[in-house]
Amino acid sequence: MMKPKLASGTRDFGPDVLAKRMYIIDKIKTVFEQNAYTPIETPAIEQLDTLVGKYGEEGDKLMFKILNNGLHEKSADKKAKINQVFAELMEQGGSSTQVTERALKYDLTIPFARYVAMNSHDITYPYRRYQIQPVWRADRPQKGRYREFWQCDADVIGIQSVAYDAELLVIYDDVFESLGLPDITLHVNHRKILSGIADYLELADALVPFTIIMDKLDKIGWEKVQAQLIDLGANSTRLSELESLLTQKQDTETMLHQLRALGSNSDLDTGIFELQKILEYIKHAKSTSYSDIRVDPALARGLDYYTGMIVEVKSGQTSGSLGGGGRYDNLTAIFGLDDVAGVGVSFGLDRIYNLLEESSLYPEDITTTADLLVYLESSDLSILSAIESARRSGLQIDTLYDETKKGKVYKLAERKGIIYVAIWDDEHAEKKTLIIKNTETGGKIEGSIEEIFGNFLDQIK
Amino acid sequence: MMKPKLASGTRDFGPDVLAKRMYIIDKIKTVFEQNAYTPIETPAIEQLDTLVGKYGEEGDKLMFKILNNGLHEKSADKKAKINQVFAELMEQGGSSTQVTERALKYDLTIPFARYVAMNSHDITYPYRRYQIQPVWRADRPQKGRYREFWQCDADVIGIQSVAYDAELLVIYDDVFESLGLPDITLHVNHRKILSGIADYLELADALVPFTIIMDKLDKIGWEKVQAQLIDLGANSTRLSELESLLTQKQDTETMLHQLRALGSNSDLDTGIFELQKILEYIKHAKSTSYSDIRVDPALARGLDYYTGMIVEVKSGQTSGSLGGGGRYDNLTAIFGLDDVAGVGVSFGLDRIYNLLEESSLYPEDITTTADLLVYLESSDLSILSAIESARRSGLQIDTLYDETKKGKVYKLAERKGIIYVAIWDDEHAEKKTLIIKNTETGGKIEGSIEEIFGNFLDQIK
Repeated sequence: MMKPKLASGTRDFGPDVLAKRMYIIDKIKTVFEQNAYTPIETPAIEQLDTLVGKYGEEGDKLMFKILNNGLHEKSADKKAKINQVFAELMEQGGSSTQVTERALKYDLTIPFARYVAMNSHDITYPYRRYQIQPVWRADRPQKGRYREFWQCDADVIGIQSVAYDAELLVIYDDVFESLGLPDITLHVNHRKILSGIADYLELADALVPFTIIMDKLDKIGWEKVQAQLIDLGANSTRLSELESLLTQKQDTETMLHQLRALGSNSDLDTGIFELQKILEYIKHAKSTSYSDIRVDPALARGLDYYTGMIVEVKSGQTSGSLGGGGRYDNLTAIFGLDDVAGVGVSFGLDRIYNLLEESSLYPEDITTTADLLVYLESSDLSILSAIESARRSGLQIDTLYDETKKGKVYKLAERKGIIYVAIWDDEHAEKKTLIIKNTETGGKIEGSIEEIFGNFLDQIK
Repeated sequence: MMKPKLASGTRDFGPDVLAKRMYIIDKIKTVFEQNAYTPIETPAIEQLDTLVGKYGEEGDKLMFKILNNGLHEKSADKKAKINQVFAELMEQGGSSTQVTERALKYDLTIPFARYVAMNSHDITYPYRRYQIQPVWRADRPQKGRYREFWQCDADVIGIQSVAYDAELLVIYDDVFESLGLPDITLHVNHRKILSGIADYLELADALVPFTIIMDKLDKIGWEKVQAQLIDLGANSTRLSELESLLTQKQDTETMLHQLRALGSNSDLDTGIFELQKILEYIKHAKSTSYSDIRVDPALARGLDYYTGMIVEVKSGQTSGSLGGGGRYDNLTAIFGLDDVAGVGVSFGLDRIYNLLEESSLYPEDITTTADLLVYLESSDLSILSAIESARRSGLQIDTLYDETKKGKVYKLAERKGIIYVAIWDDEHAEKKTLIIKNTETGGKIEGSIEEIFGNFLDQIK
């Protein structure tokens, strides 16, 4: 006998939680599909060389690698083999291909890029795809952070037009509107605005560390960011001038005005021009957006493959982001397919779930319980055909047989949340009638078996 | 640049395949839910000690184990650690907990047992659950056999009554009926009938090897089975008498009659009694079953945890089974929870998929393509709000922007299977009208933007 437990950072989902998760996923899928995005699914397991090196040193470390099964074979030269593997491990820090050649997927983007590269001849651009699947990371588990968690991504690739950037921002807005999540802000920025600012601060050669420092603004605050940027070599006078631009949440027009006031430089001009265009598209699609869509020149986003518009979704009700995304120049170059620019966004399912839960924003009838519980005490089985017919016409019917005590039936129905209960005992079997009792109101309907299932069906639908 | 490929035995699913898979899964889920089964999902990753030793030596060998992440850390004593790990590996054939403490789930039954043991206080018996998720096995990949594949299981636990065995056979029947799969047979047997036969053959002490040999009947034929059973010590005269019982497919009454003729023994009597009762339940629920439900005394099924009714689903159109299951005495004993008897069935999603594909049994409208493709050539964006409204009322609208050449629009629509196309150019923008063209019939509707989206919506819904 062993005491069973879950692997750290993983979860079981029971019916209630699953129903709520499906509710969110359905809302997201609906909006994706209205915008003509089509789904794909890729395997949990990928070749190690498809994934490794694509997520930086951190990613390689947190990737779940799968042990080769060959090591478990009973071969004559196992000892020699293990010795050799061991020598490799010592040299390479545990990444010998003799030990592992496969890993669990770490995000949905690299597998999507692999999919596009492998299926390029069948793909028609612009190609809009969505993908909702689990990914795995060996992060230290903590509240709200899991080792197996779901990503919901939509990307459109093979296009340059920022019209698609706008489309994805409207998708964000539509999804959060349909979920009824209050107090949502889409923080929008452009990588070229960031590099324009870096240029202005005389940090043109230190764009990546500049971005990394900016990305910490929410966590460590302006004072520390300022200190670190000065350490990096920023022009401190100019940095002081930027304080209000980078820390104060102002309306988009004011932000763009302040950005223009930094003077003309080609990156800054392009960034401002594209953001304005994106905002114009959004305005035409939805004259009043549900969420607050605002330009935030301080938004950096960690991933360095973004090249254009970047976005992060935040809620006033919680820290951390509910989603994010941006535009990239070349998704598939690492797999030998060039010139596939695109733009994508991702939804954080777990954070959205928790927020809906905390704010009690799920519809009440989200969990399905059976429509009727029938207790079969009699050995006369003639009721079974009526139950089967009712099930086939769409009713969900729970049945209990005589091994349960009759006195427990109503208690069981209550525990399962089932409102209607029918008892099929010898008395009713003889009369070929049935009573369906509403355990909430105490009301009863009685009649012949066929009659009563027909009436009941009409009544509860 | 690297040439990307899938890990062996895994698959990508594009939109068409996913739509067909979802079609099957929806049919199965619908029947499960009509019978008041509720869903759970368990993680892909389980603790190694939850899984190891539960599937025999073969299972332990084919399990995908996950490399501990600690091995990748750069610690001062890494050399010593790796030394120690590999000393263990040498001794234990690759199963050191320093190398691996986690594995990918191998089936849905053991994780379900773990779930029940961990949540026993919240579970109301009889507990009906279904679970549709991928599992992983390092089998040699071949046509129709994958390393990542889906299982669709339904179990009801905490009960003894064979009424539930019957319920699950009716579920099989209902699912295959709703899928319209022809030529389906449910082969039904009882483990006690098998042990009664073993007894009759004087193989009472060799029940497990007897079952294993019987299980090969379909593959190796009666002659070889007979020879192997005689090697095992079977009474050869009696074995000859059983040839027709074990090899000829006869109607259930004849089968049960022949079984009774073997004489009375308590296992045989129990087995026959329970099968008869199960068949009686089925008859009452569905006086005419869709599939051929027949008693097959030769059916063995490999897994040795079955104790009562066993079932396997076969199609006349293909070899191999489309599903199987049976009754077991104690699901959760290995996790310290006793007396949880149950019965379960499983659907083979991939085989069902292939059979529907080969027989062209999918509905025609299964794949969703966009309802309309709008090409936006004009810089006048006033049409965007109409597109957004139409999407929100349920239309799926694909959009193309001016970076695509106008001449390619109809070709693109054709490749994507989109029938209706609208062109928004300067001419229409000026007039504030739109033409929607049916590319199949050549028919056109023209009108003001609001009018035309409204009409179009009515027309195609």
